[in-house]
Formats: sequence, C-alpha cells, structure tokens
Amino acid sequence: MFNAKVKAEVLKNVIEAASPLVNEIKLNIKPDGISFRAVDSAHVAMVDLHLSSKAFEEYKADEMELGIDLDKLNGILRLASSNDIVSLEYDEETHRLVIKIGNLVRKIGLIDTAGMPDPKVPNLNLPSKVILKSNELSQGIKASQAISDHIALLVDSDGFELYAEGDTDVVNLRLPKDLLSELNAPQKCKSLFSIDYFSSMIKPVKSDEEVTIFLGNDNPIKLEFDFADKNGHVTYLLAPRIESE
Amino acid sequence: MFNAKVKAEVLKNVIEAASPLVNEIKLNIKPDGISFRAVDSAHVAMVDLHLSSKAFEEYKADEMELGIDLDKLNGILRLASSNDIVSLEYDEETHRLVIKIGNLVRKIGLIDTAGMPDPKVPNLNLPSKVILKSNELSQGIKASQAISDHIALLVDSDGFELYAEGDTDVVNLRLPKDLLSELNAPQKCKSLFSIDYFSSMIKPVKSDEEVTIFLGNDNPIKLEFDFADKNGHVTYLLAPRIESE
Amino acid sequence: MFNAKVKAEVLKNVIEAASPLVNEIKLNIKPDGISFRAVDSAHVAMVDLHLSSKAFEEYKADEMELGIDLDKLNGILRLASSNDIVSLEYDEETHRLVIKIGNLVRKIGLIDTAGMPDPKVPNLNLPSKVILKSNELSQGIKASQAISDHIALLVDSDGFELYAEGDTDVVNLRLPKDLLSELNAPQKCKSLFSIDYFSSMIKPVKSDEEVTIFLGNDNPIKLEFDFADKNGHVTYLLAPRIESE
Repeated sequence: MFNAKVKAEVLKNVIEAASPLVNEIKLNIKPDGISFRAVDSAHVAMVDLHLSSKAFEEYKADEMELGIDLDKLNGILRLASSNDIVSLEYDEETHRLVIKIGNLVRKIGLIDTAGMPDPKVPNLNLPSKVILKSNELSQGIKASQAISDHIALLVDSDGFELYAEGDTDVVNLRLPKDLLSELNAPQKCKSLFSIDYFSSMIKPVKSDEEVTIFLGNDNPIKLEFDFADKNGHVTYLLAPRIESE
Repeated sequence: MFNAKVKAEVLKNVIEAASPLVNEIKLNIKPDGISFRAVDSAHVAMVDLHLSSKAFEEYKADEMELGIDLDKLNGILRLASSNDIVSLEYDEETHRLVIKIGNLVRKIGLIDTAGMPDPKVPNLNLPSKVILKSNELSQGIKASQAISDHIALLVDSDGFELYAEGDTDVVNLRLPKDLLSELNAPQKCKSLFSIDYFSSMIKPVKSDEEVTIFLGNDNPIKLEFDFADKNGHVTYLLAPRIESE
Repeated sequence: MFNAKVKAEVLKNVIEAASPLVNEIKLNIKPDGISFRAVDSAHVAMVDLHLSSKAFEEYKADEMELGIDLDKLNGILRLASSNDIVSLEYDEETHRLVIKIGNLVRKIGLIDTAGMPDPKVPNLNLPSKVILKSNELSQGIKASQAISDHIALLVDSDGFELYAEGDTDVVNLRLPKDLLSELNAPQKCKSLFSIDYFSSMIKPVKSDEEVTIFLGNDNPIKLEFDFADKNGHVTYLLAPRIESE
C-alpha cells in the first residue's frame, strides 16, 4: 500500500533534484518516507534523496519500489500550483501510480524496477567543508560557462574560490570567509569539475537557501542541501575532472 | 460604405475566434453588425461569429462582403493596446481595408471573395447541455495532450467528464454537478474529439467566462460563448472522431 | 593606465549602441573620456559614440586604444544589475581588460587594434531637422516591417512621416508638428532606408527619450541621442536606399 498526500511544491523539488541526472528513478517507499539514489548515464554524478513522511500531509505506506518516469510525473505536476495538494496512490491491480490534483486524475504506468541499478555511495575523505547561500555562486558559474567547460573550486583558510580559464580569458569569484556561513579548511583543497554538472546541481537549491560543500584535492565534491522544511535532504556527488597539464 | 470604430480588444477577440481554424475569412457586413462563418481545411470544425453594431464605438455600413487575411489584420492589431480605438474603413477605389490606430495607418489589400465558401450549419440533435467556466477544463485538456491526441467527453445526470487514454497512462477530469453552472442531461452522452481542435476552441474563451457545450452520442460537439459584453457571439461545431474499437 | 568605475547601466548603453552594427570596437581612451567609431561590415551604417569621464564614478586614464570583443563584455555585464558598479582596469602585462563586479572578476583578452579601421565621418548637407520621442516611431517601424524591407522617411513644414509599401498593402505613420519636440524643414525632404538598420538604430534610445534626426533628399540620415545623463552621446549615419522606379 502507498497512499499519500503532499504539497505540489515538495514533489516538484523532488523532481528538480533528480532530473538533471536521470529520466527514471527507482523510488524506495518505506513506512517512514521515500528515497531514491541514481547515477547519471556517464557515471559522473550521483544523487541521493530522502523525504521524510513528515513532509506529507497524509502518509501511509508499506515497503515497496516504484519505477517512475520523471517526465510523466513532471508533466502532470506542471498543471498544479505550488500549494495544491497532490494525492499519490499505488494501484496494485493495474501497476499504476494514480495522481490526483483537485478533480484531475492521471494514472501513470510504472516502469519495471528489475533492471534498475542500486548505486552505492563511495567512501570519500573530503577534508574541507563550506556552507554558503547558493546565490553567492550563481554569477561565478554563469561567467565561467561563457569561457570554459570546466571550473576549479578551491578552499583555503581565508575563503572559497571558483576559477575558470579560457583561451584568452579568465573568470574568478572569490568569496571571503565573512560571506560564508561556515568554513572549515584544515588544508588548502582544489579540484576541477564540469561546469554543466556543477551548475545543474546548484540549480535545485533555492537562491537564498544554504548548501553545504565538501571538497578535497583532486577528489569528488559532495554537495548537500535540505528542502521541504528540512524534512527532505539531497546529497550530490560529482567526480572530478583530471587536469591535463 | 463601411466605416466603423471599435476597441482593439473586441477586434482581437474576433481574430482569436477565427484563427485556430482559418487564415482568411469572408466578412459579411450588414447595417446591424458583422459576421462570418468558416470551415477549416480538413472540414472537421466550423466557426460562426456575430458581432452586433452595438459593440462598436461608431458604426455605419451598407451590405457588403470583405475577404480578409487574418494574419495581416492581426499583425497591425498587435501594435494596439486593448483599449486603443481602431478605425476601420473600406476604400472602394483601391479595394483595401484602411485601418487607423492613432497616427498609424495600414491599408490592407482585400482578398477576392468569389471563391470563398458559404458553409451551412448542419441540423444537429444534441440532447445534453452543460454550461461551465472554461478554466475548469484547461488542466484536463493539458493533461490529456500529454498522453493522447483525442479525448472523450461524457455527460450524465451527475456531471461532465473528460477522459483520455494513452499506451500506459490515463487522464480523467470529472466535474460534478455543483462545479457546473448548468447541467441538462436527459440521457448519458459520450463522443470522442481531437484534443488539438477542442483545445483551440476553448482557448478564445476568457478563463473566468462561461462556455455552453451541447453534446450527443458519437455526434459533433457544439460550443458557444459570448464576448464584447454579450454583443458578440461565437459558435463552434466540431466533428467527432470515430472510436476504432 | 586605465582605471575606472561606472554603473553597469551606462556600460550596457555603450554596448547596445554599438552591437547592432559591429562585434568588435576600437575603444579610444583619453583623460577626459572614452569614444569609438565603427562601420558595419556592409558599409551602410556608422556609429560614433562619446562618453565623458563625468559619466564614471571614478576615472583615471592615459591615452590608449583597446580592441574589445563586445560579446565578451556583454556576457559579463549581463550578470550585473543596472545599479551595480563595474570596475574596469587595463592590465598592461597580460594585455587584458580586468572587469570586476562585486566579488566576480573577469579578465578579457584584448584584440589587436592594428588592423581595425578608423572610419571618417563624411561631410553631409542635411537640411531638415526633427526632434521627437523615439516611442512615437516604434509602432510605425513594426507595422512597416510586416510588409516591406525598406521605409521612406519624409519631412515637410507640417510634420514627419514614415511610409512603407508592400505588394498589396501600405503603412503610413504621420506625426504632425505638435507631436514633435522640434521641426525645422526649410524644404520637403524624402529618403529611403533599410527598415532593419533604421529599427536597430532606434532601439538603443529609451522609449521616452528624445532622438534628433537630420534628413535630406535621397541622402543619408543622421540620428543622434544622449545617454548617461547627457554625459554620453551617440551619432548614427545610415546610407539611403536608391529607389528603383
């Protein structure tokens, strides 16, 4: 059994977190909430999302897995306003997810989860930690996209830096300690990442919300943020680009 | 003689009602108002529009027919604000429609009406009648477009229903009696229609305005609404799709 | 040395004035301000722009020439709000322009100015002068674009007129004397111009700002306007189209 009611806004956040990386998710449903973990087709990035049953208006669930096409779910949610209540129900007989918004009903055929992977979160040792508002980064990301396809992220004891280099041009955004909510940098760290991936991982974070970044030296980046009044939590992992110098 | 002044908004409504079906209209001008009737090139839908001289700020006209290219008329009206007064005048010498908006003048060459058809309104026996606000339908139409190209419309004594079925998915919008302004359903009726046609016929109706729908069993739909403070009236007819089951 | 601070809005105006005609400019920097002159690749139009040091928040400069790629400058300015202060600095060592907006830094590689032309302003005798608000023209330009690719501009002692003729249609915008801020027409003048060029020259003028037009008979048009609280001045010249009648 899966029978839940939730604000459209919360469900939209779930889709936004996953859709930069994948088109389909295997949604793990448990009595205390829902979750999924997915890796993009290039195996460069991973998303891990948890949403507690507390984020729902109503929630009753047995343990089960639902294979969901995100485009279909997104298509019906786009017709809802942020505060609309969306009802979700699993119809065992027809193996469909029944979505109700007001008088509107859409029944979505589910995907077979048999072939869908169960990615494991790698063990990472990322010594530096930065907490900042996501909008502090957006200018730097956009400016970097204009001149390169990768970006260097640096943390030292004075602040956080984003750096990109093109053929003739350079972009640099330096956020000193006082612009950061938290900085913990026992050593200087620097890693290189694809701008497109990094940009799409920052995008789901609301502009004035905080995002936590864990960084190492030529190591993946871990990026975490909350949503749905801290009842939802997203973790991204992004593999580094190797510097060809 | 044809010499009239009208708010741009009213003329925009006239174009919006016709343009989903045709690019050209034969405008019938009479002393008491204007009208046209047109059928789309696939002969699936008909529009019949009447606009009383009372909808005009000034109106003087002899009986005549003007062949009008709607794209041209629309192009010049797009430069006017809703409340701008548009002056229309037939220039017999050059066989042009002279349109004035403020200091701007556009003279539009008219189309020869000789070859343009005079479609007749078929006699229809459509037992069910529903009156509702057009925005009640919009979510259901958009949701249906995502999964199919046709839609079933149903009326029974309890309400009005819109239904679409795709390969794996189903969309259903049920409007119970209390959400309808009027319901008259002596028998259960169901007919199938092209979503695109039905959608473009609902679009010209302002979202909080009422639309009257007449429905039968595997029969055309008749859809009516007023505009220009009830001085304008539009009737659409749409042929049913035959269910291939 | 070139070291200046200026509101983003002012710099955006500079780019908007040049970008309809060219992608690169040779920016002449002098102790009292900046300027450039450029001709489009078809040699049909010229832009001449001056911006006094008074338009800057801070300004220190020796005489020099900087070859600037407008797309690059525009790309970084798009990330700034109108009131953001943009810092510009020439870095002699790396031959780059260093642009700072808040914590964001972009270093733009400069173009070699050796091959860039120094167009001369031709001597013109344009007897008629009209001053008007640019938004008076916009409807006429848009209406003309729908039916032709060229436009006739006329001045006589009664007013200013814009005229276009298509295969079957005519557009005409007549601005009588009282809609003009100034009219000086010792003789009737008429010249033909490309609508696209004329349209893109009017576009940088804010809609309620005045533009001065000098016109002759089958002669170029000269179009002038101020920006940055009259500390900036733009002059456009546009060659006439020859009437093929």
